[in-house]
Amino acid sequence: GPVSPATEARVLVINTGGTIGMVYHENVLAPQPNALVKTLRKLLILHDETYARQTCLYDYYDPPENTMVLPLSKQNKRIIYTVLEYSPLLDSCNMTTDDWAQIAKDIEKHYEEYDGFVILHGTDTMAYTASALSFMCEHLGKPVILTGSQVPIYEMRNDGRDNLLGALLIAGQFVIPEVCLYFHHKLYRGNRVTKVDAGSFNAFSSPNLAPLANAEVDISFNWDTVWRANTTAKFFIQTSMNRNVGLLRLFPGITAETVRAFLQPPMEGIVLETYGSGNAPDNRADLLEEFRKATDRGVIMINCTQCLRGSVTESYATGKALSNAGLIAGCDMTPEAALAKLSYVLAKQHLSLDEKRKMLSENLRGEMIASLQGAKLSLRDS
Amino acid sequence: GPVSPATEARVLVINTGGTIGMVYHENVLAPQPNALVKTLRKLLILHDETYARQTCLYDYYDPPENTMVLPLSKQNKRIIYTVLEYSPLLDSCNMTTDDWAQIAKDIEKHYEEYDGFVILHGTDTMAYTASALSFMCEHLGKPVILTGSQVPIYEMRNDGRDNLLGALLIAGQFVIPEVCLYFHHKLYRGNRVTKVDAGSFNAFSSPNLAPLANAEVDISFNWDTVWRANTTAKFFIQTSMNRNVGLLRLFPGITAETVRAFLQPPMEGIVLETYGSGNAPDNRADLLEEFRKATDRGVIMINCTQCLRGSVTESYATGKALSNAGLIAGCDMTPEAALAKLSYVLAKQHLSLDEKRKMLSENLRGEMIASLQGAKLSLRDS
Amino acid sequence: GPVSPATEARVLVINTGGTIGMVYHENVLAPQPNALVKTLRKLLILHDETYARQTCLYDYYDPPENTMVLPLSKQNKRIIYTVLEYSPLLDSCNMTTDDWAQIAKDIEKHYEEYDGFVILHGTDTMAYTASALSFMCEHLGKPVILTGSQVPIYEMRNDGRDNLLGALLIAGQFVIPEVCLYFHHKLYRGNRVTKVDAGSFNAFSSPNLAPLANAEVDISFNWDTVWRANTTAKFFIQTSMNRNVGLLRLFPGITAETVRAFLQPPMEGIVLETYGSGNAPDNRADLLEEFRKATDRGVIMINCTQCLRGSVTESYATGKALSNAGLIAGCDMTPEAALAKLSYVLAKQHLSLDEKRKMLSENLRGEMIASLQGAKLSLRDS
Amino acid sequence: GPVSPATEARVLVINTGGTIGMVYHENVLAPQPNALVKTLRKLLILHDETYARQTCLYDYYDPPENTMVLPLSKQNKRIIYTVLEYSPLLDSCNMTTDDWAQIAKDIEKHYEEYDGFVILHGTDTMAYTASALSFMCEHLGKPVILTGSQVPIYEMRNDGRDNLLGALLIAGQFVIPEVCLYFHHKLYRGNRVTKVDAGSFNAFSSPNLAPLANAEVDISFNWDTVWRANTTAKFFIQTSMNRNVGLLRLFPGITAETVRAFLQPPMEGIVLETYGSGNAPDNRADLLEEFRKATDRGVIMINCTQCLRGSVTESYATGKALSNAGLIAGCDMTPEAALAKLSYVLAKQHLSLDEKRKMLSENLRGEMIASLQGAKLSLRDS
Repeated sequence: GPVSPATEARVLVINTGGTIGMVYHENVLAPQPNALVKTLRKLLILHDETYARQTCLYDYYDPPENTMVLPLSKQNKRIIYTVLEYSPLLDSCNMTTDDWAQIAKDIEKHYEEYDGFVILHGTDTMAYTASALSFMCEHLGKPVILTGSQVPIYEMRNDGRDNLLGALLIAGQFVIPEVCLYFHHKLYRGNRVTKVDAGSFNAFSSPNLAPLANAEVDISFNWDTVWRANTTAKFFIQTSMNRNVGLLRLFPGITAETVRAFLQPPMEGIVLETYGSGNAPDNRADLLEEFRKATDRGVIMINCTQCLRGSVTESYATGKALSNAGLIAGCDMTPEAALAKLSYVLAKQHLSLDEKRKMLSENLRGEMIASLQGAKLSLRDS
Repeated sequence: GPVSPATEARVLVINTGGTIGMVYHENVLAPQPNALVKTLRKLLILHDETYARQTCLYDYYDPPENTMVLPLSKQNKRIIYTVLEYSPLLDSCNMTTDDWAQIAKDIEKHYEEYDGFVILHGTDTMAYTASALSFMCEHLGKPVILTGSQVPIYEMRNDGRDNLLGALLIAGQFVIPEVCLYFHHKLYRGNRVTKVDAGSFNAFSSPNLAPLANAEVDISFNWDTVWRANTTAKFFIQTSMNRNVGLLRLFPGITAETVRAFLQPPMEGIVLETYGSGNAPDNRADLLEEFRKATDRGVIMINCTQCLRGSVTESYATGKALSNAGLIAGCDMTPEAALAKLSYVLAKQHLSLDEKRKMLSENLRGEMIASLQGAKLSLRDS
Repeated sequence: GPVSPATEARVLVINTGGTIGMVYHENVLAPQPNALVKTLRKLLILHDETYARQTCLYDYYDPPENTMVLPLSKQNKRIIYTVLEYSPLLDSCNMTTDDWAQIAKDIEKHYEEYDGFVILHGTDTMAYTASALSFMCEHLGKPVILTGSQVPIYEMRNDGRDNLLGALLIAGQFVIPEVCLYFHHKLYRGNRVTKVDAGSFNAFSSPNLAPLANAEVDISFNWDTVWRANTTAKFFIQTSMNRNVGLLRLFPGITAETVRAFLQPPMEGIVLETYGSGNAPDNRADLLEEFRKATDRGVIMINCTQCLRGSVTESYATGKALSNAGLIAGCDMTPEAALAKLSYVLAKQHLSLDEKRKMLSENLRGEMIASLQGAKLSLRDS
Repeated sequence: GPVSPATEARVLVINTGGTIGMVYHENVLAPQPNALVKTLRKLLILHDETYARQTCLYDYYDPPENTMVLPLSKQNKRIIYTVLEYSPLLDSCNMTTDDWAQIAKDIEKHYEEYDGFVILHGTDTMAYTASALSFMCEHLGKPVILTGSQVPIYEMRNDGRDNLLGALLIAGQFVIPEVCLYFHHKLYRGNRVTKVDAGSFNAFSSPNLAPLANAEVDISFNWDTVWRANTTAKFFIQTSMNRNVGLLRLFPGITAETVRAFLQPPMEGIVLETYGSGNAPDNRADLLEEFRKATDRGVIMINCTQCLRGSVTESYATGKALSNAGLIAGCDMTPEAALAKLSYVLAKQHLSLDEKRKMLSENLRGEMIASLQGAKLSLRDS
């Protein structure tokens, strides 16, 4: 008869698209609908057909044609996973806030049925989506892990199988109530990552926070870093996200006209990618005036660094100029996380402007170190 | 009497400003005019007063009050350096194309008198300035090395002394006819670097090209990488740079309105920071239409990746959409280098649009690998 | 009919044993004879049964039951590989010089039939074997690539498939006339590696030489580093290796008694792992006396550093003490390479002691930078 | 009058010798007695003569000629340090257990007078000495920080000033009751480091434990890692160390004769550097017999890996063979730490053999992770 259900875990795989499931057509990669499950069924490390038949798995799980089971894990668990494939499959370059909302809704819809969720997604905007989902999911109590690959799973040399397998093993067996991103043997907090390499299997980096786990010969967790919910509130999602937000990177010679054009209505919030520790030209009255005017009409601006690593605080001089112009210090947030947070907070119509600004300056999902006071002994801020 | 001139080398240090020469005033860093030389004179590793007096150095070099001499180097050279300090000192956040032109003019003015040039500069926009100078200097035959520090040279723990000393030793002793950036024991090609860390002494990275030299216990050069001039043409500078250029980073949900506003006249050229290997939304006819319209009216756009590492080629599908919309593949250029190159090429008024586009797609100063064909064996472009 | 033979390449896989082919028995890993091929046949990325049948592959290649074919590669090649499995399978901890000779003989025996060779081997002593084979193979004109894995190929999460696949693709398609080691997406020169991590998939490092190739999304080669034969001499092997060699690591408080015991006959050569740049106690007349006595009776000693990175030269003071005691500077050789080289050279009975010492101080197979003079500008050796 | 003593901290600098204080004589580095203090007095970042005179410092501290004061730190402290120079100065290659005892005695002698201790030491054996001192110091309540340099402090480009300054600032201002090693901007636990690079300023690595602190632009501590004393017992030192200990590295073809010779009396304990996760030849009855015989006559052997990173546990098969032969699992200890621990424990004459073995398998000073059970989820130990 079937093995005791206690040893089984269920994971929902939401296949939104991306390189992992693409196929070459005339040297161009394109999504291939309804193909992924067929391939997974043939891969010994990703499906154990013997177990499925012995346990009459397909009689118990729904829909059977999209359900598979991993070989027995080292923790003596059977991870049964069901693939929910989007139609049409999406190229991650084309992802919008509506797609984020759809993913969130699918997590919510199936929240009780599954122990964890894996989201297959293209790598190009995976860091943006992971950041967005981290805010859209309120009181998350189960793992939601985004993954994908640099090379399609159908290719001979590919990173898709390892990435999917690792994500499934973690989503099905460990209590990590976070939106994560798993790639190349590492589990990251989703709102801490950025894509740093277009050509390497090691495509992502979490520059300001160590990985939550390393899946080498052994899987080792940094449990001190994993998010601990301090509430028993029920999971729900916020699907509305404000679309009138943008990313603006400073560069030498940027004109007030460019800034004004970028900030013009309907823009409601921007992440300003500044220099170093949050610096901008402080002798450019015209620029600062544009920032001030935007702030005055209610546009919210977050000051993030264009450096890969590091933090923006209000204690620096040129940072102070921006702070005086109304910008909020983005601390050590990635631009991707700051943009998603802005979109999330600006959509809260019941909040006042001040409440939104306050919320943006607080740590909501581990996306930043809220206060740097006391954490470091600076040579520069004596 | 004075030591044989054959053993001496002369370096001009152009102090444009930056953290290296700043001082704290009420916890805020501010430039301190006319202070750097006084401090350097007191530092044993940066000035040998005994030698200066024994050789009557101040009688020979001009102006004496700004001239110093390093202790004898391991290569048995005496590097005599003169500091030319800008007034006012500049915060690198405030640097403009005019400032780049001033630096270039000062190099040209003193080109024959010195064996090499060191440019002291703030770190925040040093990568932009290094890129710009690399294009502005034509047929450069001597080293021009930008450096600076994360912590002022007046502070107890600081990186300014090591950075200045290393830059002087290389500028005075080695034939490296390039605009370089020296930081934290490494010499980089100037148009290959980007600032990656706001809080570490190891602030810069050259993601797509190995350093030209490592200055550890020994100084070791990668001579295969160092630029070799294939001409004996005379050095000259181009000081005109087109200011109507900009950096635009793609993000999910970017609107056609934002793109149109950013591209509106007088904008003449932009670097588009795309996803991954040069991808953009290909189902966004509105966006592609904006790019196409801009191209049609003569705006030149370069496609660079927003990933730290990697390259944009025309062989990818979504890259092709941008290529069809008229964008030029930026290969493995940094956004900083691409922006500077655009500003440099667009200023060449005698060139036709097609000639400008052709020039932009070629390797001019080692800022990119011009052709990736044959260099790699791709899993993706069969 | 069968595809044109011109598009096919043949690789011999010599399976000596190791973790890659082990299975758990009561929580203990043990070799599993005659199992690897059965598993490889079921893995889609490692065998294309359809092609094999369509081309009547098994009629052409021998022995058919151990022959497989990879899917079509990006370079449009079919790599047909045959597994030669040792019986009994060996744990790499148990490898001896006889086993090295057996591998070399099998390469020689099949040299003309195959385009390249892959050696499956346990990771624990893989660096020693790779070093030994690099010397035993004279005038090698085809790739010999050692690989293996940290986790058995039969496990769900494993590195064996990627490692074997990468080694096959390189061995079958590229002209790299070296003994190499392929692991975790990198191809190294075999006599340059050392195992640095017991628990990571990234188990090997080549501390003093950059990898020959990186197999990420694309495979990129450092062709400047790949060995170029400057001869058309015919391939042959030297199977005799001197066994009376050893590795001795210095430590504070090491006694002359310990050294004397270690150096006593029949010991004929040792690699001394010294401190830093080749230093040893220079106030320990008793130790130096033991070294001197050993040298005087014909024992050859090579001075290598116990640091992971760096080089031993004769220009250092304490290094000079050892040089005076008769030790040969090991430059930047790994201890593994130095031991193998010693074993190889000492087996050349027709050579005089001086000829052996001279040969040991020369670069034979790219295992070291023979002369560091001029390569670096030292702060220490003015 | 003098500044309030509350803002001053006192550090004792014990200058044992090493490259940091060496000078070139005919291209050979040699120690230079009584020179370091004279140089330090002239370095602005390492001595503030104005403050010393204003506060009549030399009237208060003893001996005045060897006492200096740092400029005001960012934490508003004045660190007053006194240099105690050994005569003769020692080359670290020549260090013995007697020298370790001397250092420990000097710490004990001055323990109450100073807030922290800095030990200047050559880099070659610094990891051995740091390990030894960590065991010799019982109930340490103040920081003891070893440092030194790759290039003499008298050279133009050198790492000695930064290393000494960083060590002084940490020793004088933070509660880190450990024997540490500070090098190239990082503070490590002393018994966790090994010298990994003979030619880089970044010479040390702590492969199995993250640094205790990073001293970049800011100094940031990993307070979770810093040792917390769980006792109020009084500090004391154990100066006796057993000298009959050794390091033996396995290599293919090692003979039983070599092992027997190495293990012969008076050897009482050895660290065996095994392969990978603690493996040795398990088909070599002759070798295992030698280990067994040694164990039977009371020799204690610790099993450490020769890999830079990783751990030895008793759960592996070939490790079990060694465990059966009586070896103690060294977990993730460095060979340097294991050797020092062995020397320390074997000197405790009041302990029985079993008590010594038990002590050696426990975590005494943070030198190892005592129990790996539960810390990792292994693919290999299901």
